[in-house]
Amino acid sequence: MKGLLITLEGGEGSGKSTQIQLLARWLKEEGHEVVCTREPGGTPLAEEIRDLLMVPRAETVAPLAELLLYQAARAQHVRDVIRPALQRGALVLCDRFVDSTSAYQGAGRTLPEEAVMELNRLATDGIWPDLTLILDLPEQEGLQRARNRGSDDRMMEETLSFHRNIRSAFQRLAQEEPDRITMVDGCLSPEEVLEALKERISALLQEHSLSQERSS
Amino acid sequence: MKGLLITLEGGEGSGKSTQIQLLARWLKEEGHEVVCTREPGGTPLAEEIRDLLMVPRAETVAPLAELLLYQAARAQHVRDVIRPALQRGALVLCDRFVDSTSAYQGAGRTLPEEAVMELNRLATDGIWPDLTLILDLPEQEGLQRARNRGSDDRMMEETLSFHRNIRSAFQRLAQEEPDRITMVDGCLSPEEVLEALKERISALLQEHSLSQERSS
Repeated sequence: MKGLLITLEGGEGSGKSTQIQLLARWLKEEGHEVVCTREPGGTPLAEEIRDLLMVPRAETVAPLAELLLYQAARAQHVRDVIRPALQRGALVLCDRFVDSTSAYQGAGRTLPEEAVMELNRLATDGIWPDLTLILDLPEQEGLQRARNRGSDDRMMEETLSFHRNIRSAFQRLAQEEPDRITMVDGCLSPEEVLEALKERISALLQEHSLSQERSS
Repeated sequence: MKGLLITLEGGEGSGKSTQIQLLARWLKEEGHEVVCTREPGGTPLAEEIRDLLMVPRAETVAPLAELLLYQAARAQHVRDVIRPALQRGALVLCDRFVDSTSAYQGAGRTLPEEAVMELNRLATDGIWPDLTLILDLPEQEGLQRARNRGSDDRMMEETLSFHRNIRSAFQRLAQEEPDRITMVDGCLSPEEVLEALKERISALLQEHSLSQERSS
């Protein structure tokens, strides 16, 4: 793959979407082709699946059905958006990806970690993040921010302890994969967060251009 | 499980839905609790997933996304409808189930058989058909019947050879699992098909009541 997949992860209200916009502007100014996308979503079908998943509903969604819906949206998104962009050499910035599934459906819904990971591998079909940036924030703070901006995501209905488990899961993932995952303190100002993210991405871009030079 | 899961399978226009209605009437008259349901579908969320799957769309659906959507609907359906009904002791008649996924997504979409089967096992979570009745019909004949009744299923857009592969897959499944699967000639009159299905179900009910007597 000539491009790079950079994923942003974190709990509700952690500021991922804002940061992605700022990062995209910066990277475009630097002359890169940038594709901003999100999960679940990114294609018409995947956005329809997103609607199914986000809307609060009377019927409780079976955790396994939820997991499979996220993976269905992902399979479509990877095939139609992420893979072609990476093949073109674009930088793909994705708001949530496989680590959100590990955190929300694994730790949050307590589905077996191996099943979640196996489906992550199946749906991504050989595509994996080159870099993952987790915005870490105390769950109360994040939920308050999300409520302030009027979020009505179905996940907002979950208990505080559910969101605490998500945060712990992200922290654990960052510890387990320090090379791929960088955690940034989401309590910093947006400017400070942006600086930290830019620094990590700059390092990745440098490594990547060096490795491309070596292989050419 | 006190109940029995009986699935009806076959290509487009094979007459499954008609036969299920006739079978349900007969079984109710015999004094059984009967639950008629279908896949994809059977719960509000699963029916919404069905809509996503059935509607012809500009975007070509990734085979893997299609498979995962069917399995998501199934996970919800098994948890909320099929398992509770079997626990109550009902006879569940289901229009399409795991064998349709093997035939359509496995043979039709040429997804790896093992992946399809693994997901069939995951989504059904220990529930498996006690009896499967396949209505076998030449693909041209079935498609003509389906067109005559005005079907606009997305599968109707597929080629004749796609539907021929589906038919061969059902025939192969019936050969591989003769104890669970009975194939009936869908070219017979509806009355004759019904008689053949009733005969096989009667045998199952007799075995089942014998095995329940032994265990009580």
